[in-house]
Amino acid sequence: MTEESNRQWCLAARPIGRPVKQSDFSLETNPVPVITDGEFLVRTRYLSVAPVMRNYMIDGAGIEEPLAIGDVMRGRGVGEIVDSKNADWPVGTIVQGKLGWQDYSVATGAPGTLMFPIRQKVAPIATGLGVLGMTGFTSYCSLKDIGQPKEGETVVVSGALGGVGNIAVQLARLMGCRVVGIAGSDEKCRLLEDKLGCHATINYKNGTLDEDLKRTAPDGVDIFFDNVGGSILDAVLMHLNRYARIICCGRISEYLNDEPYRLRNWGQVGSNRATMRGFFVYDYEPMFEEAERVMADWIAAGELTYQEDRLEGLEMMPMALMRLYEGKNVGKQIVHVSGDD
Amino acid sequence: MTEESNRQWCLAARPIGRPVKQSDFSLETNPVPVITDGEFLVRTRYLSVAPVMRNYMIDGAGIEEPLAIGDVMRGRGVGEIVDSKNADWPVGTIVQGKLGWQDYSVATGAPGTLMFPIRQKVAPIATGLGVLGMTGFTSYCSLKDIGQPKEGETVVVSGALGGVGNIAVQLARLMGCRVVGIAGSDEKCRLLEDKLGCHATINYKNGTLDEDLKRTAPDGVDIFFDNVGGSILDAVLMHLNRYARIICCGRISEYLNDEPYRLRNWGQVGSNRATMRGFFVYDYEPMFEEAERVMADWIAAGELTYQEDRLEGLEMMPMALMRLYEGKNVGKQIVHVSGDD
Repeated sequence: MTEESNRQWCLAARPIGRPVKQSDFSLETNPVPVITDGEFLVRTRYLSVAPVMRNYMIDGAGIEEPLAIGDVMRGRGVGEIVDSKNADWPVGTIVQGKLGWQDYSVATGAPGTLMFPIRQKVAPIATGLGVLGMTGFTSYCSLKDIGQPKEGETVVVSGALGGVGNIAVQLARLMGCRVVGIAGSDEKCRLLEDKLGCHATINYKNGTLDEDLKRTAPDGVDIFFDNVGGSILDAVLMHLNRYARIICCGRISEYLNDEPYRLRNWGQVGSNRATMRGFFVYDYEPMFEEAERVMADWIAAGELTYQEDRLEGLEMMPMALMRLYEGKNVGKQIVHVSGDD
Repeated sequence: MTEESNRQWCLAARPIGRPVKQSDFSLETNPVPVITDGEFLVRTRYLSVAPVMRNYMIDGAGIEEPLAIGDVMRGRGVGEIVDSKNADWPVGTIVQGKLGWQDYSVATGAPGTLMFPIRQKVAPIATGLGVLGMTGFTSYCSLKDIGQPKEGETVVVSGALGGVGNIAVQLARLMGCRVVGIAGSDEKCRLLEDKLGCHATINYKNGTLDEDLKRTAPDGVDIFFDNVGGSILDAVLMHLNRYARIICCGRISEYLNDEPYRLRNWGQVGSNRATMRGFFVYDYEPMFEEAERVMADWIAAGELTYQEDRLEGLEMMPMALMRLYEGKNVGKQIVHVSGDD
């Protein structure tokens, strides 16, 4: 237990236009909460940000309840149990869960709350927000279940150096596929080829996406792992192979616009007998243990690398989220809140 | 064998704009073909038309090879074997297959050619082009495999009185779902409710599709059986339930336009964790026997009705196809070519 106060980032205003602004958030200081029977207190070590958060601030995106003005911002974190009245969750346990944008949070660990003890020992605990947390589980579960990759197939990944994207790129390669990464700068493309093993890359800002897809995916696209949507989705749709699978994992292009992009090539889904499916990681809880185990093994073998883009201090949370929408982050954007690891 | 000539409708010009025109076709008269060992000669009794045919005339739509100028128009028919040098296919057998827009055709019945003997005895042989042929198999196989209907779910069918649509409506009802049919006139809507058992209908030409969907599918849409695409798909996307399934069966709205409709609400697939999947019946050959048996039983029990829109004489083929794109047909559009049944 601690005598410190609990700093909390709260929703001050719903974002309009693009992207989120510092003034959409307010930093409040409140007492550290007191736990009752069955509860435990978590001190936040790390917090993560994700594109979906802007939707939480507006309407919930059909995934979770929208936040009310004044609510503590929702978000996952890694922390340490520092006080407990629940024998299943002893003090000292490192957990990942929905800690919120704050120093301290109270939890029960009940089923469905998506609170997990971190079991793996091969990587720093902050990976519980990235490659060995919801981000990596998103890449793994969606690629396996929707993508169903077969050796030798061509996988195109948009937002390929983003949190989900960079892991998807590596997993697709480790599963025996040819991987084409799409990113927004030549520097990102170089990283994708040199560090993550992309067989080819496309800088979509060159404005020659269609020709570049023809060149980099000459046998067509079997799996499109889409973190972006919009005009990139539209371009890839024209290169689908028959029975292609489109993993609708994110639509970061849409988070920047109040008006949706109007998709021209939607008919290609039907004409190619393709499948386009939305994915949300919370549906895949039964697969998490497999995902953590398989990916931890690949990490231990040096075959799967991860990148974090780390900011220092709880006060950086709005900035961290803004960086996402501006495409500035390289790898998983996290914020270090407390602790030495 | 016969001394008659073989009339053949051939592709005269690739269609531009909307819809197909009489001058895109030319009627040629040629000798009846002579068969060699392993072949048999089919005299056409009935021919069918389908929306995909315009694509055959242009680029094949990724489904079949495009036709060359001068080629006999491709299309399925029901006919009788009138000459045979293949012991597996004796004279007198009634078959359905790709007979083409002509009086006589030669076949081998080899696997993969999608030539079948008609086994059922409960309905006229012309049903082999409709409810007990590719049309009905399309409705049955796509609803079962992509739709995976559960009792009490809401199924919306666009083009609900079309060849595939009217059967999908009935099958969805027989599988225990609430069915909302979308069609283009009040008369069609009345037929859908009175004759086909739709629980509710929408005349999309009223221009109040969104409000009408709210009213007729108050619990949201679990399955969208889409034969139309375009603005109707766009409207339904806003009413999807989580985990909804969209069967991309046809895009008749697109066959009328050279420029594709630009879809606004594509992001709903992702945000609702929905599945949108293209369907083509030829992929489902292993399911055809089940489809014919199950639907024949429902027909025999008086629970599944079928509607044909019949024109008389081979010379009507272009007209029959034009009627499809103009939405004039009520039920499966077929043309009677020869014979008394």
